Parts: sequence; structure tokens; C-alpha cells
Amino acid sequence: MDTAERLVESTRELLWERGYTGTSPKAIQQRAGVGQGSMYHHFAGKPDLALAAIRRTAEEMRALAEEEFSAPGTAVDRVTAYLLRERDVLKGCPIGRLTQDPDVMGDPALRAPVDETLAWLRERLAEVLAEGRERGELNTVLDPQAVAATVVAVLQGGYVLARAADSVQPFDQAIAGVLGLLAAHISMPRT
Amino acid sequence: MDTAERLVESTRELLWERGYTGTSPKAIQQRAGVGQGSMYHHFAGKPDLALAAIRRTAEEMRALAEEEFSAPGTAVDRVTAYLLRERDVLKGCPIGRLTQDPDVMGDPALRAPVDETLAWLRERLAEVLAEGRERGELNTVLDPQAVAATVVAVLQGGYVLARAADSVQPFDQAIAGVLGLLAAHISMPRT
Repeated sequence: MDTAERLVESTRELLWERGYTGTSPKAIQQRAGVGQGSMYHHFAGKPDLALAAIRRTAEEMRALAEEEFSAPGTAVDRVTAYLLRERDVLKGCPIGRLTQDPDVMGDPALRAPVDETLAWLRERLAEVLAEGRERGELNTVLDPQAVAATVVAVLQGGYVLARAADSVQPFDQAIAGVLGLLAAHISMPRT
Repeated sequence: MDTAERLVESTRELLWERGYTGTSPKAIQQRAGVGQGSMYHHFAGKPDLALAAIRRTAEEMRALAEEEFSAPGTAVDRVTAYLLRERDVLKGCPIGRLTQDPDVMGDPALRAPVDETLAWLRERLAEVLAEGRERGELNTVLDPQAVAATVVAVLQGGYVLARAADSVQPFDQAIAGVLGLLAAHISMPRT
């Protein structure tokens, strides 16, 4: 990896582990094994580097989610696959956790990729659910926009519960709960 | 308010606004209008003061939630009242946000009240839902433990979505979504 790449990857790790406020330029330089002069040669400063890191993480998250959203199967199959995908639960969501960082939320440039990623997830999930409703897989009473927001919220909140408990159990329970609730909305097959 | 009280209240505000890592002893002293010597006379340090602040916030949150959980009405009425209660959505949950603070999660004494509060919420909601099931208000397929975790996760995740969007809309949608899903589990009245 070249120097700029090492800096971005180190920043991604530190943002996930320690948040933005808790990550110093010095810590980034140490993890990347890069001197201060070299860091400021490649990036204007911590916000610039953090923006590159957050964008990279957001792109990867979208690509992974899109694999599940555009897979074959019913809407519920695809939402289930998305919810049950293996995750590093105790580390939390590298994008969602940034919402608790006042310095990220207070900087429109840094907040933008966080906002866009979570909005995109809700939008794509709403499309998948709307498709399921149109195909007659899901009850017509189901509101795709609202349930999409619920699904993304359950994931983000599940991480919060898991971190508090230092256990994946409440995360798994929250996912099982929403899948159980969703199951009651699956239309009976027309025989 | 006496000095110790002013210090605890200032710490509560700062923890909510800036998190633990982002709150310095100096900032607490300034907000409380208290000198450094006086602060260390009342509290051993920032962790000690933060513990008092987190405990106070946790107690208040439980008392407020318990009002809804023990109110009259069906289980769904009570869960609905809890979910729709007025909240300072864009500020987030003063307890949940601490889970994103590695210094809080890394200190067993500080993590304990966060863990206990969220576990208590899940437990009480599971009791309310189990009661609704026993009374025949809810379908027997509904898993009270799992749905309780879902409800708490939707709230915590709703805050995350609202902060990212700088709007209460996704929070309100996530709540509407889970209430819509729950509605399909209400048993038909026996006529």
C-alpha cells in the first residue's frame, strides 16, 4: 500500500474503534507508520482524511448491501438475508456510530456521506418491500417506507444494545423479533 | 443547587451533548461555575462524576418508562404510548449514545448503568408483551423477548437515523413501521 492508502485505512480503523473525536492526527500517523510531514503532504488535515475514510467505508457498505438487495428470491428472503448477514456486531456500525460524534455531525461535509448511506439503505429496502407487495408476497397494509426505516433502525439499535450488554444476544433477539413481526405480513400463497 | 448538584447536572448535559471522551473536567467546571479544587473536593475525578451523572439519567429514564409500562390499557396501548412519547429526538438517547464511547464501554463501572438500563427496558417490555399474550390481546406466535429487543432497538436506531438525517422524519417512520408490524399481531376480539 502506498502512503495515502495506508493513511486512509488507518483512519478507517481508528474511526471505527475510537470515533472521530477520539482519533488524533498523531494516532493516525503512528498506526499508518507515516510522519507528520508526509500526512500533511497527502491530506489537508484530519477532516480531509476522515472524509476519504468515511467515503470508502460507505461505498463498501453499499456494495455489500446491494448484493443482498438485488439477489434472487422474495422480498422477505432478501430482507432476511440482509438482516442475518454476518456482522462484527460488538464493534458496531462504522457509519452509524459516527452519528454520536458531535464533531462529525457538526461538519456538513463529514455528515453528508453518513446521511446519504443510511438514506440509501432505507430507500433500497423500501424498493425491495414495495416490489414484494406488488408481487403479492406481502400484505398491502405494509408501508414499505416505514418498514424500511424500521429495519435499518433495528440494525443500528441492535448494535447499541449489543455494545451495552457486551454480547451479541440482544442484537440477535432484535433481528429475530422484527423478522417474526414481518412474517405475519407474508401473504398466504394463492393455491 | 449546591456545588455537587451543579457538577452532576453540568456533567449530565455535557455527556449528552458531547459524549464522555469529548467532555473535559475543565468544561464541566466552567459549565457548573465551580473551581477545580471544589470539583476534586466533591468527586475523585471525571469517571466518578460521570458515574453519578449516568446513574441519575438512568434513574429518570426508568421512572418515565415505568409510568407508561404500568399504565392501564392493553399491551399494545402501552407499547404504543411508550414509543410515541415526546422525545428530544435530535439529541438522541442520553444512555444509548454512551455505547459509542469507547472510554465508557471500556470502564466496567461506567458501562454497568448503561447495560442495566437497556436490559431493564427490554425486560419490562417483554413482561408487558407477555401479559398481552396471556390476556389474549396478542397472537401466541409473538415472542415477547425478541419483540421487546426489537422495540428498544427501533428507538435506539431511530435516534441514529434522525441524527444522520438531521431530521425527526426517519425516527417517526421507524416507529410507525414497527407499530404497523405489531398491529398484525393483535388478536381479533372474540365476539
